[in-house]
Amino acid sequence: MAKVNENYLKLPGSYLFSTIGKKVSAYSAEHPDKKIIRLGIGDVTQPLAPAITEALHNAVDEMGKAESFRGYAPDLGYEFLRSAIAENDYRVRGCDISADEIFVSDGAKCDCSNIQEIFSLDNKIAVCDPVYPVYVDSNVMAGRTGVYDPGAGTWSNVIYMPCTADNSFVPELPRETPDLIYLCFPNNPTGATVTKPQLQQWVDYANKTGAVILYDAAYEAYISEEDVPHSIYECEGAKTCAIEMRSFSKNAGFTGVRLGFTVVPKELKCGGVALHSLWARRHGTKYNGAPYIVQRAGEAVYSEAGRAQLREQVAYYMNNARYIYDGLKEAGFTVSGGVNAPYIWLKTPGKMSSWEFFDYLLEKGNVVGTPGSGFGPSGEGYFRLTAFGSYENTVEAVGRIKTIQV
Amino acid sequence: MAKVNENYLKLPGSYLFSTIGKKVSAYSAEHPDKKIIRLGIGDVTQPLAPAITEALHNAVDEMGKAESFRGYAPDLGYEFLRSAIAENDYRVRGCDISADEIFVSDGAKCDCSNIQEIFSLDNKIAVCDPVYPVYVDSNVMAGRTGVYDPGAGTWSNVIYMPCTADNSFVPELPRETPDLIYLCFPNNPTGATVTKPQLQQWVDYANKTGAVILYDAAYEAYISEEDVPHSIYECEGAKTCAIEMRSFSKNAGFTGVRLGFTVVPKELKCGGVALHSLWARRHGTKYNGAPYIVQRAGEAVYSEAGRAQLREQVAYYMNNARYIYDGLKEAGFTVSGGVNAPYIWLKTPGKMSSWEFFDYLLEKGNVVGTPGSGFGPSGEGYFRLTAFGSYENTVEAVGRIKTIQV
Repeated sequence: MAKVNENYLKLPGSYLFSTIGKKVSAYSAEHPDKKIIRLGIGDVTQPLAPAITEALHNAVDEMGKAESFRGYAPDLGYEFLRSAIAENDYRVRGCDISADEIFVSDGAKCDCSNIQEIFSLDNKIAVCDPVYPVYVDSNVMAGRTGVYDPGAGTWSNVIYMPCTADNSFVPELPRETPDLIYLCFPNNPTGATVTKPQLQQWVDYANKTGAVILYDAAYEAYISEEDVPHSIYECEGAKTCAIEMRSFSKNAGFTGVRLGFTVVPKELKCGGVALHSLWARRHGTKYNGAPYIVQRAGEAVYSEAGRAQLREQVAYYMNNARYIYDGLKEAGFTVSGGVNAPYIWLKTPGKMSSWEFFDYLLEKGNVVGTPGSGFGPSGEGYFRLTAFGSYENTVEAVGRIKTIQV
Repeated sequence: MAKVNENYLKLPGSYLFSTIGKKVSAYSAEHPDKKIIRLGIGDVTQPLAPAITEALHNAVDEMGKAESFRGYAPDLGYEFLRSAIAENDYRVRGCDISADEIFVSDGAKCDCSNIQEIFSLDNKIAVCDPVYPVYVDSNVMAGRTGVYDPGAGTWSNVIYMPCTADNSFVPELPRETPDLIYLCFPNNPTGATVTKPQLQQWVDYANKTGAVILYDAAYEAYISEEDVPHSIYECEGAKTCAIEMRSFSKNAGFTGVRLGFTVVPKELKCGGVALHSLWARRHGTKYNGAPYIVQRAGEAVYSEAGRAQLREQVAYYMNNARYIYDGLKEAGFTVSGGVNAPYIWLKTPGKMSSWEFFDYLLEKGNVVGTPGSGFGPSGEGYFRLTAFGSYENTVEAVGRIKTIQV
């Protein structure tokens, strides 16, 4: 008699963005005349850059000819892409990461949720609070998180590291020592960043305690300030304690194209076992690589033309971020983020809860954002807006938010 | 202190096809002048059909324009693809499967290895022996398989169902009752198939015992005989006991394009829990959908032009299969498969072990096949050749095999 994985049944509600999608659909169905502006899910809206579509077209042509057709990709990803990543994302920043420490995948969401699998079930995780829900949910599904407290919105076996206005949304080292530490900078959802000395503290702490840092750097392309590290490997000693996950979704608009990668340095070991070999085994056994044409598109991200076009794309979104930030501040909101990240984190007005403000904004302004409490208990009373809309929609949304009465 | 998932350390050697790849690379490096013909891994060689490349080009153009750009795909996959699948793969065969029971993914390998995750860790699996290694390996990694016996090549907590010449490579119902039953027809590696009455027995058995059948139908496009079911849902009662996994890799040459799907009927429940909702939760939480352009390519598989072109492609490979089958039979080999599947399963000559014959064939004939023992203990003394090479290479390979002295 087959039995289900009971851990799945412990998950409260549905995945945050599915819930939001359903609420918005329901509102749309009831009010078909309203023009809804979506600044909720962090999904890009600008079309693929010409360098990217050109690479895709060329690769499609290759796949249509016998002499250049490609079947199964190499386990770790094509060498042309891994080399481009190693050179442009790491070596130019002084990080000694080689092409064979890079594992190409179909996106950071998969990697962020699958990476826990190579660790023991009795490892204890620490997460920032608020946090991208995938880190916790994937550990719930695996059975690592203990019992859920619906009142508190917390799991008994998870170490929460509050990121609040008091600590400028940068967590302090936890009192209890975790085995696995999820960090994401620039941060989703708060848009906060760490300086290199701040991140170095985490690296030193992990090396001292034997913890592994799972570092999500999906938003690194949005960093505009000097002293903010783009990779954890800019810190000394990170290669013996950190795995880094990256995405092409936000720097190149690949949310619908699907490409990402994970770096597992060969020096990184737990109890003498190289995590590189475990992750390689997972890739080889349970995955068949990202599409060839998509890997060629990824390569084009690093071409001269690609870089120039994507710098513009990032600048376009960051201009939106500034517009939201300035507009809301002017309107009296308490806002942060938006400087090194495409997310604006705002305090809900009038002591509204996050979901109250979500409903209010949807109804009164027809603007969709993300309730901060969906990211964890310390997100209660906050709200996330993304800069990934079109400029016109962003301007209109800010205008609407300014005029609604709270 | 982080600890690794010790189940990974129990896996013997590396993934079968990685091992073969390494052996072939080593031989190539030593003998750069030799022309090696690869009939080992089941990877296609024919270029993408024109209907497919056209769909890909069109979708790339859409992604390059603001008005038709697509970001994150819907969790289950785009409706246009799921509807095409429901209609063409199921309804035309009289299977009552709806579009929202279909989950689009980046390939059957991922689905086959991830599907176990929604089941309890104390479920016991049954597999055919020999079998596609992913079923067992993914369960080893999860910790479901007990202790490995290197001598026997078996796991203590797995029910093996021998598929040998004695039962025409079709397993009998197991004596011990399993919770999860992996079946694959047309079979990889033996190329064997079941008739509809034979498969109905399995469905009845599963419904009676409460087991769930995980049915891998990746090779259904190669079925040439009448009484062989293309889907398990052609059997009565399958919707309450079976999950079906399908691939576009073999029917449309998508090994490097990456697309597959899994069917989880809404009626399928374990202990009152709908497996559909668990798999939906997994998709929503840990996955971000197959690329839009690839889903459009999948849609084109069902277009009139696509179907005509892909029928030809399948016929091309099946012509190879016949050529290998007839040629080896003529040369005195004991062969099976190749009629409803692109795989030929042959008995190694002269009582050689599977790996001995692998090495022998690589050295003497410069032909790469897959050792039967790599698929399980009952595969020892057998060898798999695939029909996915070019016709010219297939002819040359068969000629070489005929002339080498054993």
